[in-house]
Amino acid sequence: MEYEIRPAGLQDCVHIMRMIRELAEYEKLADKVQITEEVLKKDGFGDNPFYKCFVVELCSGQKSKEGFTVVGYALYCIVYSTWEGPFVHLEDLYVMPEFRGTGMGKKLISKVAEVCVERKFSRLQLAVLDWNRPAMDFYLKKGAVNLTTSEGWHMMRFQGEALKGLAFSETGH
Amino acid sequence: MEYEIRPAGLQDCVHIMRMIRELAEYEKLADKVQITEEVLKKDGFGDNPFYKCFVVELCSGQKSKEGFTVVGYALYCIVYSTWEGPFVHLEDLYVMPEFRGTGMGKKLISKVAEVCVERKFSRLQLAVLDWNRPAMDFYLKKGAVNLTTSEGWHMMRFQGEALKGLAFSETGH
Repeated sequence: MEYEIRPAGLQDCVHIMRMIRELAEYEKLADKVQITEEVLKKDGFGDNPFYKCFVVELCSGQKSKEGFTVVGYALYCIVYSTWEGPFVHLEDLYVMPEFRGTGMGKKLISKVAEVCVERKFSRLQLAVLDWNRPAMDFYLKKGAVNLTTSEGWHMMRFQGEALKGLAFSETGH
Repeated sequence: MEYEIRPAGLQDCVHIMRMIRELAEYEKLADKVQITEEVLKKDGFGDNPFYKCFVVELCSGQKSKEGFTVVGYALYCIVYSTWEGPFVHLEDLYVMPEFRGTGMGKKLISKVAEVCVERKFSRLQLAVLDWNRPAMDFYLKKGAVNLTTSEGWHMMRFQGEALKGLAFSETGH
C-alpha cells in the first residue's frame, strides 16, 4: 500500500475533524468533542498556531471504503518541562480501522519522533486510556515508559465551575 | 504577610531556577533537573516563548531566611485538546516551605485560572505524584478531577534511546 506522510495543510482540517470524531467514538468519549472544523483551522493555521499535525494520504488513486484519501493523523504540540526544557506532547495518533496493520501508525509516530530529535527535544509524551490495551502495548513495545505506574504521576484537571471558582477567588489573606 | 503575584521577568530566572531545584528535591527527583538559568531565560523570554510564569514577591522589605524576596512561582504553557481546543498545562506550582499556609499557593493557581477564564480556555491541567498527598488533596479540595482514577488516563513517555529508535526507523510495513 502506497502512502505519504506529510505536514497537514488547511485543506486537511475537514478530514482531521472527521477522524477526531472517529477516535473519540473509539475511546467511548464522543460526546466530549466540542471543537469544529473552523476552530481547528483557526487554531492550527493562524499567526500563533496551537498545534502541528501530520496526515497520512493514500497515493496512486487508492481510497478508503467511504472514498477518503486522508486516512490517519498525528497531532502534537510543544510543552515545557522545568527539568528538561521543551518537549513534544502527542495529543492524538489515529489510523482509520481499515488501514491498521499497514505500518501507518508506526510511521506517523516516527515522524513526530523525528521532530523531537531534529529540534533536540528530549521527550515525546502522550496519554493513553488504561483499558486501551492495543494502544498501550504499541507504545510500550516501542520503548515508552508508563510514568503513571513507574513514578506515580496522575493527571488532574480543573474544568467548568471548578475552574471558574479557582479564578478570581479571594483567599482571605 | 504582604506579597504581590506578578508575571515573571528575565531577572526572576535566577530565582525560578533555584526554586525548580528545591521542588525537584521535594519530589525526590533532583537528579532530573538538566536545564540552567540561561536555558530558562532563552526559552521563556525569546521571540517564541515556550512557557509563561507568575512569581510571588514579598513586599515591605520582608525576606526569606536566606534573604530572598521571590518565594514562589507557577509556570505554565498552552497545550491543545482536539476535543476542546487550547488549554493551560500547569507544569509547576511551588511556594517555599517557610511560606506555606499563607495563601500564596492558592493565589498563584488562582492567577493561572484567571488566564484560562480570560482567554476562554476550558481546562487547567497538571500532573501530581500519587504519594504527594498534600498536593493531591489541595487540588481535589479545589475541585480538580483525577483523570487517572476517574477515566483511566496514563502518562507515557519516550526518551533517550527509545526516542531515537522511534525516529528515522524503517517500518518495513
